[in-house]
Amino acid sequence: MKALYFDGQPRFEVDFPLPAPRSGEALIRVLLAGICSTDLEIFRGYSGFCGIPGHEFVGVVVEVNGPDQTLTGRRVVGEINIGCGACSLCRQGLASHCADRRVLGIRGHQGAFAEYLTLPVANLHPVPEKLAAEEAVFAEPLAAAFRILEQLHLRPSQKILVLGDGKLGLLAAQVLHLTGAAVTLLGHYPEKMAIAGRQGISTRSPRDLPADGSFEVVVEATGSAAGARQALCLIRPGGTLVLKSTLAAPTQLDPTEIVVKEIRVLGSRCGPFAPALRALAGGRLDTRSLITSVLPFARALEALALAGAKTSLKVLLDFRR
Amino acid sequence: MKALYFDGQPRFEVDFPLPAPRSGEALIRVLLAGICSTDLEIFRGYSGFCGIPGHEFVGVVVEVNGPDQTLTGRRVVGEINIGCGACSLCRQGLASHCADRRVLGIRGHQGAFAEYLTLPVANLHPVPEKLAAEEAVFAEPLAAAFRILEQLHLRPSQKILVLGDGKLGLLAAQVLHLTGAAVTLLGHYPEKMAIAGRQGISTRSPRDLPADGSFEVVVEATGSAAGARQALCLIRPGGTLVLKSTLAAPTQLDPTEIVVKEIRVLGSRCGPFAPALRALAGGRLDTRSLITSVLPFARALEALALAGAKTSLKVLLDFRR
Repeated sequence: MKALYFDGQPRFEVDFPLPAPRSGEALIRVLLAGICSTDLEIFRGYSGFCGIPGHEFVGVVVEVNGPDQTLTGRRVVGEINIGCGACSLCRQGLASHCADRRVLGIRGHQGAFAEYLTLPVANLHPVPEKLAAEEAVFAEPLAAAFRILEQLHLRPSQKILVLGDGKLGLLAAQVLHLTGAAVTLLGHYPEKMAIAGRQGISTRSPRDLPADGSFEVVVEATGSAAGARQALCLIRPGGTLVLKSTLAAPTQLDPTEIVVKEIRVLGSRCGPFAPALRALAGGRLDTRSLITSVLPFARALEALALAGAKTSLKVLLDFRR
Repeated sequence: MKALYFDGQPRFEVDFPLPAPRSGEALIRVLLAGICSTDLEIFRGYSGFCGIPGHEFVGVVVEVNGPDQTLTGRRVVGEINIGCGACSLCRQGLASHCADRRVLGIRGHQGAFAEYLTLPVANLHPVPEKLAAEEAVFAEPLAAAFRILEQLHLRPSQKILVLGDGKLGLLAAQVLHLTGAAVTLLGHYPEKMAIAGRQGISTRSPRDLPADGSFEVVVEATGSAAGARQALCLIRPGGTLVLKSTLAAPTQLDPTEIVVKEIRVLGSRCGPFAPALRALAGGRLDTRSLITSVLPFARALEALALAGAKTSLKVLLDFRR
């Protein structure tokens, strides 16, 4: 099969071996895959992962290695963490924190930048029929945005600041805006900020921020060390800092400031797919505007370069043409 | 009056001017004062505070500058933060986070290492008659331990680790132990650990810790950079790290580890006096064993040196003899 993989540098290969589904896993033909910032870091060699990256996808189940064939032939999206199933964390439903977990396209499991991938059936969610693949492909990053609401009771009267007008920041701002809270997005690029602005979200550039911290919740979605430090200043005493991005650059959070301002810091990672699919099906979010380009998979290396441009948002790989 | 003050180095002075209570403040004659690690940092010049340190005390109200004389002649302990009373944080009851706050013996307000101090009447709590001054003097650090329970719902079935067998660690471990949770104290000094052990708290030295993180809540009370980093490793995914100490040494919390393990970090500072006084009056805690020495105030400089010794716990200054 065709695959975009990393072995020290990005390579496009036309006869990569087809993956074999283990017991309980489905073989999935990929229709569309999204390039995420984590993928770009993998292709820069920051994570140590070698193989096929990619963890945002829509595909069709070709076959299931197991008795339950309910999903065969169905269009699906999939959760990316595969726990060992036996440890105490897995038994408590915390497979995404299993120490021995595999993660699609990130750790120990080939990913979605290929014509076929495998995932346990338990990880799959059927895509509602009326939902276009170009929207359903946002289920995974959108689930990560919904994760914030699983961890934190956001009250509709609260003032929330989202730092970063990248893909994650724009999705998080839209999801948090659904709660009725007063959401402000802080970013640099007028075209990106306009996407949030059209949804009724306040937008600000760094130069017109209030000097003192008055936000009850600040979501760090810049992925930069400066973002995390700035977040601590902008938050009000007793407020909450949500860390959404795993930073490649080593950075520092000052524990003294956390104690003196009694700040709560919340690490937040993968989230629930069901509410993400419901929000997409209900048309409550603008994901279309986040698509910078859709390129045929044969042009994957070009797509990778485009995804890394500062002005880009989501670049999709299309396997259907 | 006699006072122990800092002007670049610790000095003992016999005719320091008496403080004048502002409107709504009481003049308090100090009976007993405790030396805290924060005081030691002030005397090392780490905080930039010049004047009379000291914020743990028991005293008698001599006079009140105001109409309400209810407390005159009463034995009291006192909350240490004095907000401006006018800003939005003060109006929300968050005076301890007021940007213009004064703090007894720490910031803009002379402290308890003197024969007299002043505090707003609103900050004062009468000491129950049967409670000895040697116990009541622990109200302030004990309130800081109770602060954890104000911020965090500790469930009785949880596994909690307290890092640090200093004064704060020993008080926090005892307070958390009251909830029914399984508390383990990690420390270095057998004599200090024995105080917790006698209360039924498990104690461990660093060499017999479990290799992997399995604690749902870890309380950092070592005040060391290594402690904060170690805490992140010992905590289980999704768990909570409570930061109790303002670290003098610059240190680092790794945001990537916080995100990947989805850890909640909680800064925790000053707490409620009423539950601390109730717990002391009810005899539910052992504070007596934490007293290393009680020295007359005339020997304050000697007391300061003793308080700085690694094997010391609480050193008290006695103004009654």
